[in-house]
Amino acid sequence: MALWFSESASSGHRLQWKINRMLYSGQSRFQSIEVLETESFGPSLVLDGIMQTTSGDHFIYHEMLARVPLSVHPHPSRVLIIGGGDGGLAREVLLSSQVSQVTLVEIDPMVVEVAKEFLPQHAQAFDDPRLNIIYADGLDYLGQNSLAPYDLILVDSTDPEGSGPGNSLYTSTFHERVYNALAEDGLYIQQTGTPTYNPEVLRQTSLSISNTFPVCRVFWCVVPTYPGGLFTFTSGSKRYDLMRFTPQATSDTRWYTAATHQAAFALPPMVAQLLPDSVRLAQSREPH
Amino acid sequence: MALWFSESASSGHRLQWKINRMLYSGQSRFQSIEVLETESFGPSLVLDGIMQTTSGDHFIYHEMLARVPLSVHPHPSRVLIIGGGDGGLAREVLLSSQVSQVTLVEIDPMVVEVAKEFLPQHAQAFDDPRLNIIYADGLDYLGQNSLAPYDLILVDSTDPEGSGPGNSLYTSTFHERVYNALAEDGLYIQQTGTPTYNPEVLRQTSLSISNTFPVCRVFWCVVPTYPGGLFTFTSGSKRYDLMRFTPQATSDTRWYTAATHQAAFALPPMVAQLLPDSVRLAQSREPH
Repeated sequence: MALWFSESASSGHRLQWKINRMLYSGQSRFQSIEVLETESFGPSLVLDGIMQTTSGDHFIYHEMLARVPLSVHPHPSRVLIIGGGDGGLAREVLLSSQVSQVTLVEIDPMVVEVAKEFLPQHAQAFDDPRLNIIYADGLDYLGQNSLAPYDLILVDSTDPEGSGPGNSLYTSTFHERVYNALAEDGLYIQQTGTPTYNPEVLRQTSLSISNTFPVCRVFWCVVPTYPGGLFTFTSGSKRYDLMRFTPQATSDTRWYTAATHQAAFALPPMVAQLLPDSVRLAQSREPH
Repeated sequence: MALWFSESASSGHRLQWKINRMLYSGQSRFQSIEVLETESFGPSLVLDGIMQTTSGDHFIYHEMLARVPLSVHPHPSRVLIIGGGDGGLAREVLLSSQVSQVTLVEIDPMVVEVAKEFLPQHAQAFDDPRLNIIYADGLDYLGQNSLAPYDLILVDSTDPEGSGPGNSLYTSTFHERVYNALAEDGLYIQQTGTPTYNPEVLRQTSLSISNTFPVCRVFWCVVPTYPGGLFTFTSGSKRYDLMRFTPQATSDTRWYTAATHQAAFALPPMVAQLLPDSVRLAQSREPH
């Protein structure tokens, strides 16, 4: 028998993965959780029916979300991750020796438990003593008054769709709390999905972040398991421009390099047209 | 009734498009030909069961294949296209007023006839008096002794799979004939597919082209309808380096800009590792 997992990118487009076996299937208080062993990409996490991360190509997403800000911030010591319960982003961040502490605020304890058992590549992070996991809603966590300022805040969540747990992380209230929780030279990055099929996430999030932060930049990469491949991140910064950085040699990456860092900010017009004028114009300068 | 067209990217991964209606279905001497009106991307051409080009996102592929060399070559007057019977690449090339003549060598007359009837966006090229269509095999055409030299030669073919008509265009014999048919400062570009699922096409073609031409460069873009999104082109040049160009303003493109031109040559290590050392090292210089 051949089992296929099917995901709808839109009403007219689907992706399908052949499944060797189902490693886990459960329902938490927040979402359905499956781990599928796909033929193409190995063990893969599916939340509420949407492919989140695979063992085969997660490195692209995690390298870009972690290393772009780590290469720009001069002292990225205290890092906050909202979401990311699979551990893959924390693992990538913790590869930097400059990072002294990662706080991972995940709403769903079951995601962490499942990753520890079935996503061993991702779960390496959970053995690192610099990692502190807090089970809470990201919006609530940032509503506390007693937080010490973070150098980086990274959101690695589900898309804001339906009644999913990621929704509150795509609001202006959340972005204001992020701003307040960051150090005076802090950086913020959030995944803003696949503009080919879901342009509103990028459009609305870039507007909200550019209204909150003095510097807003958008960058992109290709994640083969996400619909259409084209995938975006939106950043807010109090001081540093992610487009200006000192290239450093990288030897252990498969997507990120100094060259792909710089290239990631070259926006095709089909992406740039979704952004507020200020962001679009700042990024449309000629190559330097 | 819902109709879905399904394409296998690999044994473990499929793409599916919802079909509003089938516009055309036939069998030529060379291949099966279908035109499907997809819900997501409008009328789309399928050859031997593989999605070739859609009305919704063909501009990405065609802009990159045409405008990268047109932006580098100082006098791209005579252009040869091998394949490209849908007309979309010829249309993009003919947007340049520097181009005085496009010769399109297509093996399959039925592709041109079908495009004229069902792919109106692509088929605009067929009204241009600068276009000359020759129905012939590309390898045979270039075997003639009497050809006047071309400034650009572009291959827009099916992938070299099975017994398809594109196979002979991915051989060292073909690349030698291309070299001989080019002017002394001519440029050559060939599509080399999706390295995520089919890395051998890029690996073997870049090796052959780098053995034939003094300058070989690889660049990439994202085509949402191709499996994994990540899509590559490989170039051979007698004189010019496609990475060195004078940016010009573009106003009518949706993917190509001077910035995305430059960015397209920043290769992620997962792509670069497929290339011959000489190509990989030449493209891995730090951003400039």
